[in-house]
Amino acid sequence: MSRAGVAAPDSPLAILCGAGLFPLEVAGEARRAGREPFLVGVVGTTDSAIESYPHVWVRMGEVGKLFDALRARAVAELVIVGAMTRPEFADLRLDWGAVRRAAGLAQLFRRGDNGLLVGLAQIIEREGIRVVGAHEVAPRLLAPLGPLGARAVSPGDEADVALGARIIDALSGFDAGQGAVVGAGRVLAIEAAEGTDAMLARVAEMRESGRLRFAGPAGVLVKAPKRGQDLRLDMPAIGPRTIEGAAKAQLRGAAVAAGGVLIVERERLARMADAAGLFVAGFASADAAR
Amino acid sequence: MSRAGVAAPDSPLAILCGAGLFPLEVAGEARRAGREPFLVGVVGTTDSAIESYPHVWVRMGEVGKLFDALRARAVAELVIVGAMTRPEFADLRLDWGAVRRAAGLAQLFRRGDNGLLVGLAQIIEREGIRVVGAHEVAPRLLAPLGPLGARAVSPGDEADVALGARIIDALSGFDAGQGAVVGAGRVLAIEAAEGTDAMLARVAEMRESGRLRFAGPAGVLVKAPKRGQDLRLDMPAIGPRTIEGAAKAQLRGAAVAAGGVLIVERERLARMADAAGLFVAGFASADAAR
Repeated sequence: MSRAGVAAPDSPLAILCGAGLFPLEVAGEARRAGREPFLVGVVGTTDSAIESYPHVWVRMGEVGKLFDALRARAVAELVIVGAMTRPEFADLRLDWGAVRRAAGLAQLFRRGDNGLLVGLAQIIEREGIRVVGAHEVAPRLLAPLGPLGARAVSPGDEADVALGARIIDALSGFDAGQGAVVGAGRVLAIEAAEGTDAMLARVAEMRESGRLRFAGPAGVLVKAPKRGQDLRLDMPAIGPRTIEGAAKAQLRGAAVAAGGVLIVERERLARMADAAGLFVAGFASADAAR
Repeated sequence: MSRAGVAAPDSPLAILCGAGLFPLEVAGEARRAGREPFLVGVVGTTDSAIESYPHVWVRMGEVGKLFDALRARAVAELVIVGAMTRPEFADLRLDWGAVRRAAGLAQLFRRGDNGLLVGLAQIIEREGIRVVGAHEVAPRLLAPLGPLGARAVSPGDEADVALGARIIDALSGFDAGQGAVVGAGRVLAIEAAEGTDAMLARVAEMRESGRLRFAGPAGVLVKAPKRGQDLRLDMPAIGPRTIEGAAKAQLRGAAVAAGGVLIVERERLARMADAAGLFVAGFASADAAR
């Protein structure tokens, strides 16, 4: 499946691709940096657009096939990118390579989302493959400091951004979400297992039902990684869908920790934010979180 | 409006009644303790069943009428009970007594829900009326230690209860919610402006959509007051509706801080929990939160 003359067999970078197009952005960045990517698609999850790169398809549970494919290409480094649905253990199609590692896999399903990824990374590293973060492979995809679109954070929003960052910081010790919505000094929503999109939908609902009443746009989505989090595995991200959700929730904008949040489809995201009158900006997290 | 021979004019207790029937339970407890209650109903919010007690109806914003009524009965103490919809300043029907206090009222609307109540209490106390808590007037309505219905907390649930209590504790510094749902060591939902019922509905949704997958009942609702919270004003509460929501979310039960959470309609709540196979229990919060 790899194309002759394209792969760099001395040091290929494997990309375990979750849903969406973000894995392709990471692949593009890796190639730009002179590193040929080898994409691993998960059947039923990954977009078929990965086929424009050297790739292999595996089903959830085909752990043996995964490691065989990585070994055949002498992959030494792997990055996990994009949303991955948490599977039920019973739904996995375990192959022989999985059964051999079954004890380790079964343990994963007793953990939270973050614990699951940490365990997955351990299993991969036990095979001699280093797990790296998208931010290491494609640092240009990280949120910069300051505005991404035409609008900047207003002085009036800054207190809300700081409050949101403090809440995420306070929840650092827990395997919970990495987002909050704060408006006019009030904590409107805190993210846990439902994810950012569902949290924004909830704020939209509270606006529509009159439970939250503001005149015009109000509130800020704040996203930041938890303190002490392994950024290789579960780095927070925003993308066009986040902006869509923020617009429906009638927010004023989105603030993300500079260097700590990945930006998916940056150009389209910035255009959408501009069109919706929202700001999107990176904040200096060390300042904001204290 | 007060009935001759029933009111105790030397020390009547005023009850500012929010929605639901809980204000009547508090009134019943006060009367049982030998203290005649005087109920203040808010038009459009309070249940008309308060009319079985000495009472007065006011519209939101009729601050002058409220204080005139309290003064006419020489009310020295007032308790605020039941859910109060946060009004828009523009929707208030301000009377002359309100206009006289307008500066104070306007300030309230810049605060969070908790800040709003704190400010309201300050305005009331500025009139020489002491604001007391439902837990002081009706201590029998507080959650006891241990189970309320037939089922007890299983050893397997205890870690989840403790985790939920730690999360609420971590959020103590913020004017956010006082509830969380934890299951199998994972943080499933954290309450903010949406309230407990909406949080439970979200967990139900995640179960139905397969975002949260558990075999059978899983997860615990945990409610506890924030550290340093003024319990006179915003004490957490659970009632039959909470049990209904917990059952729909396929939880295993609800755990509340003993002595720190009010139980609305305790008998019906316990019956409903038994019928749904849920536990409802008070936990020792000092132990659980550390």
